[in-house]
Amino acid sequence: MKKHNFSPGPAILPASVIKEAAQGVLDLDGIGLSVLEISHRSKQFIAIYDEAVALVKEILNLGDEYSVLFLSGGASTQFFMAPMNLLNEDETAAYVDSGTWANKAIKEAKLFGKVEVVGSSKADNYTYIPRDWQVPAEAKYLHLTSNNTVFGTQYHWWPEVSQPIVCDMSSDMFSRPIPMEKFGLIYAGAQKNMGPAGTTLVIVRKDLLGKVRRPLPSMLDYRIHEDNGSMYNTPPVFPIYVCMLTLRWIKANGGLGAMDQANQAKAELFYNELDANPLFNGTVTNKADRSLMNPTFVAINEELDKAFDAAAKAQGLDNLRGHRMVGGFRASMYNALPMESVQLLVDVMKEFAQKHG
Amino acid sequence: MKKHNFSPGPAILPASVIKEAAQGVLDLDGIGLSVLEISHRSKQFIAIYDEAVALVKEILNLGDEYSVLFLSGGASTQFFMAPMNLLNEDETAAYVDSGTWANKAIKEAKLFGKVEVVGSSKADNYTYIPRDWQVPAEAKYLHLTSNNTVFGTQYHWWPEVSQPIVCDMSSDMFSRPIPMEKFGLIYAGAQKNMGPAGTTLVIVRKDLLGKVRRPLPSMLDYRIHEDNGSMYNTPPVFPIYVCMLTLRWIKANGGLGAMDQANQAKAELFYNELDANPLFNGTVTNKADRSLMNPTFVAINEELDKAFDAAAKAQGLDNLRGHRMVGGFRASMYNALPMESVQLLVDVMKEFAQKHG
Repeated sequence: MKKHNFSPGPAILPASVIKEAAQGVLDLDGIGLSVLEISHRSKQFIAIYDEAVALVKEILNLGDEYSVLFLSGGASTQFFMAPMNLLNEDETAAYVDSGTWANKAIKEAKLFGKVEVVGSSKADNYTYIPRDWQVPAEAKYLHLTSNNTVFGTQYHWWPEVSQPIVCDMSSDMFSRPIPMEKFGLIYAGAQKNMGPAGTTLVIVRKDLLGKVRRPLPSMLDYRIHEDNGSMYNTPPVFPIYVCMLTLRWIKANGGLGAMDQANQAKAELFYNELDANPLFNGTVTNKADRSLMNPTFVAINEELDKAFDAAAKAQGLDNLRGHRMVGGFRASMYNALPMESVQLLVDVMKEFAQKHG
Repeated sequence: MKKHNFSPGPAILPASVIKEAAQGVLDLDGIGLSVLEISHRSKQFIAIYDEAVALVKEILNLGDEYSVLFLSGGASTQFFMAPMNLLNEDETAAYVDSGTWANKAIKEAKLFGKVEVVGSSKADNYTYIPRDWQVPAEAKYLHLTSNNTVFGTQYHWWPEVSQPIVCDMSSDMFSRPIPMEKFGLIYAGAQKNMGPAGTTLVIVRKDLLGKVRRPLPSMLDYRIHEDNGSMYNTPPVFPIYVCMLTLRWIKANGGLGAMDQANQAKAELFYNELDANPLFNGTVTNKADRSLMNPTFVAINEELDKAFDAAAKAQGLDNLRGHRMVGGFRASMYNALPMESVQLLVDVMKEFAQKHG
C-alpha cells in the first residue's frame, strides 16, 4: 500500500530527491565514491556546499549583507547561540511566547541577557498567535517563532518594529516568500521543507555580529563559521547534500511563490473539509492563525478519535497523530506532500462522516 | 577504474554499509518510507538508536556507569563542551599538546577553567607524542588526543594517572580495544571508523557530571541529553543510522580485537615498505609513535613528490595528499580500508623506486 507521509518532522521529501540521495550514497555523480566517504574539503563537496548556499541566496533573493551558514545542533542550539552572539548581559531582547519552541527559546535566552516576553498565548494552551503587543524601544531584537508545529498556528503577518526580527522558521522555511528586510537572523532545522535531520540553516545579517563582550567558543561564534564557509570543522556532509538537492527541487518547481500557492491550495482543501465536517474540530481558536504546514484537529469524542485513527491508517495515511500536548490529529503538509495525499485525507474524512455522522 | 579511498575523513566505509545505507534512503526495511523522512520518535528510529547504543556498549564492554550519547557539532564542539561540563573556573585541567586538534581543545578549555599544558611537541611540529610529563595532583582530569590525523602520530600507551582521562578519539575510535577504566569521557566525530560526518559519539562517566556551578544551556548539558536518550531535540537521524550499520559490521567482523589485528597488519605492510624504500621518508621522528590510522610520509625531493602523486592517482589511489601543515602524503587506513588497497599502494611505491631510484 502506498504511504502518505504526514510526519511533522523529520518529514516527507520530494520523491526525486530521495532517489538522487540514494544514488549519491552509492556513487556520487559517477566519481566511484559515496557522498558518505568523501572529504568535506574535496572539490565535489565544495561544489555541493557552494551550490546549496547559492540556491538559498537565489531562492530568497538575499543580498551580500547576509551570511548563509549550514550548522549542526538543530534549532535548539540556535535558541542559545542567537542571544549568545547578539545580546550582552545588560541588554534586553523581546520575545513572543507562541508555543513550546518559543518557550524553550525564551528559557535559553535568559542565560545571556534580559528577556522581555511581550506577548504570550501560553495561558490558552497556545491556541492562537498573540497580538497587540509592543516591543520596548531598548530591545536589541524581537524573537518570533513563525510556525508552531505542535499547536498548528502560524504568523500570516509580520509586525512593524524598528528592531531586527530574529526568527525560528524551522517548520515553515522555504514554504512561502518572506520579507527579508525585516529579519536580522533566521534559523531553521532542515528536517521539514529543506532536507533530512542533521543540519540547521542560519541566515544572519553580518552587521549585527561582533557586538557582544563575552568570549565565545569557536563553534558558537557565527563569525568563525562565516570566515570558514561553514567548514571551521567537518560539517554534516550528507544532510547538506540532501538540502542542496531539495533546494534545486524548490527552484525547479517555481521557487517560493509556487510553493506558497501549492501550500495554500492544500490547506484550503483540508480546512474547508474540516470546517464542513461535523465529526471534527480544529484546535486553533483564531482561524486567521491556522498553520498551512501543520493543521491540528480533534474528533468530537474519544470513540471517533480511535475509529478515525484506524480508518486513516487503513488507507496508508501515515503519522497523522497529534502531539501529546494537543492530542487528536495533525496533518503536516510540507512542500513535498502532494495534493493527492491531502485529497485522500479529505475523502477519508468525508466517508468517515457519512459512516459515523 | 576502481578507487582506493585513503581519505583522512570523512573516510571510507565498508562497502556493505554503503549498500545498506542507500537502501535505507530508498525504503527503510520495507516500511515504504525513506530513513530520511521518518520521525525521530518513530518506532523504527528508536529501534535504530537503541541498537546503536547497545552495540557501542557491547563492543566496548561498557558498564552502566557510562552514558552513551550521539550528539552533533563534531569533536570541535566537545573541545568546549567537555570543560564546560567538567571544570569550574577556579579548577585546573591538564592537557597534552600533541597536535593541531589537541591545541584547539586547549584553546577552548581556557574559556572555562585553568589549563595546564603538561606536555607538548609543538616546537617540533608535532613529530612525536610528548612523554615524561607529570599531571598536577589538583587537576580534575587529563585531556589527550589519542591519534593525530594531521601529523600521523598515535598513543600506543596510556599514562598511569589518578585522574580520569578525557580523550578525543575521533580518528582511532573503534580501531582497537581501549582500557575503559582509565577514561572519564571519550568523544569521537563519527567520520573515520564509525560512520559519515554529522554525529559525534560521547561516552561519559555519569558520576563526573553535575559538579560545575555555571548554568548550562540545555543543548550543552550532557545530563539533559542522557535524560532524553539523545532526543532532547531532533538528533541527526541518518548519520546515526549509518553508525549503527557500521557498528553491526564491526561486531560481525570480530569486534575491536579483530579490527586491531587487521589495522596492525596493514600498518606493518606499509611501514615496512616505507622504511625500505629509498625515495620516501616518514615524518614521525619517534617510530614508536607512528599512527596505525594515518601514516604520513614525504618524497625525498619535490620532483619525486609530484611524480609519485601522479603515479598513485594513475592507479586509483585516492586522497593520498598530506595535510598542508605537513605536506607530502598521508595514507589513511581506517577499519574499512581493505588490505588490498595497502598492497597496491606498496606495489606502486616499490615500482616507483625501481623506476626513479
